[in-house]
Amino acid sequence: MGRTSDARDKILEAAKLLFEQRGYSAIGVAEICTTAGVPKGSFYYFFESKQALALTVIDEHWAAQQAQWVSILRGEGDPLRRLRELFEATEEVQRAGQARAGVVVGCLFGNLALELSNQAEEIRKRLQEIFEAQIDLIEQVVLEAKAAGLAGAAVDAREAGRSIVAQIEGRVLLAKLLNDPRQLDSLWRDTLDLLQVPQQSRSADAGRAC
Amino acid sequence: MGRTSDARDKILEAAKLLFEQRGYSAIGVAEICTTAGVPKGSFYYFFESKQALALTVIDEHWAAQQAQWVSILRGEGDPLRRLRELFEATEEVQRAGQARAGVVVGCLFGNLALELSNQAEEIRKRLQEIFEAQIDLIEQVVLEAKAAGLAGAAVDAREAGRSIVAQIEGRVLLAKLLNDPRQLDSLWRDTLDLLQVPQQSRSADAGRAC
Repeated sequence: MGRTSDARDKILEAAKLLFEQRGYSAIGVAEICTTAGVPKGSFYYFFESKQALALTVIDEHWAAQQAQWVSILRGEGDPLRRLRELFEATEEVQRAGQARAGVVVGCLFGNLALELSNQAEEIRKRLQEIFEAQIDLIEQVVLEAKAAGLAGAAVDAREAGRSIVAQIEGRVLLAKLLNDPRQLDSLWRDTLDLLQVPQQSRSADAGRAC
Repeated sequence: MGRTSDARDKILEAAKLLFEQRGYSAIGVAEICTTAGVPKGSFYYFFESKQALALTVIDEHWAAQQAQWVSILRGEGDPLRRLRELFEATEEVQRAGQARAGVVVGCLFGNLALELSNQAEEIRKRLQEIFEAQIDLIEQVVLEAKAAGLAGAAVDAREAGRSIVAQIEGRVLLAKLLNDPRQLDSLWRDTLDLLQVPQQSRSADAGRAC
């Protein structure tokens, strides 16, 4: 039992690594098994197809990322500071990935969304749910920021959540293309603009990341 | 001569269609030739490899898009209005693609950037140049908007150009994932925020797209 569950974990780890580095289509089951160091027969014991594996990789990655987002965004204190922590954590993830792999690997969800949206309906649906959940989490923080008078009264919290998620994805794309995690530095400054935070509320500390 | 040049065009057209719909790795030379209706021998007469073909597809797509961007952004009149026209044209491209293919195909450059940045150095470099050229074009308009007092004096034109390009890519990603070109509707409103355009300068007409 210990051995088989270990093999499943190794397959998941190898698949995540390979999908992040080279996408979904470029990777075959044989290469995943070789990288994981497990026989190909084991693969089909755990997963019925490469797509089923990809869905599990997505779910496990989201479980970990969601826990991080919830822990940061549902905390106490200044809601804008929580958003800033999220951006710093996101940049740190890309920086750590770069230190490990030598290159910025980007966002697994964004990578797969662009590669597979029109080819794998089940994956598209799962990714839609994940992006909606991200938008929900940010929307809640924006509502808190509005209630506290920190964000502009005219800001539509739902739409702002969507714009911030889009900005994260766009900036991660530039970070991957340029192999430069600092492309994410500006998420904080852009968010101050998108949330119409008055200039006088943008503290010296807040300006540090700009 | 007429026949061979026709075959080259057919290969380019088929490759662009297939790359847009399913990415680079999922598509082989044989499928490109079948779709183009040309014998495989012709392929290697015109292109030394799939990557060489992809670079030509990228260059031709950028030549057309750059002409459109220059025509819109280097026009006369209100610089903010020119940006808005660019967003409307971008949404129209996605809408037309959806009408043709049944699905939003997204941005060829963004798709390939996420799929290939860490696998094909020559493609990465070409895409870096294209995104920098897009940022240059938008930066110039932002500088004009600042000079005309339409954008906030504190706005860094270069960084604003980069943020607007990131926002376009992020919104196109959502449009592709949700198969919904209206995800690009908010580019205009977000740009008013990113450029710190004063509320009183956001005309009733400007608000129409919000």
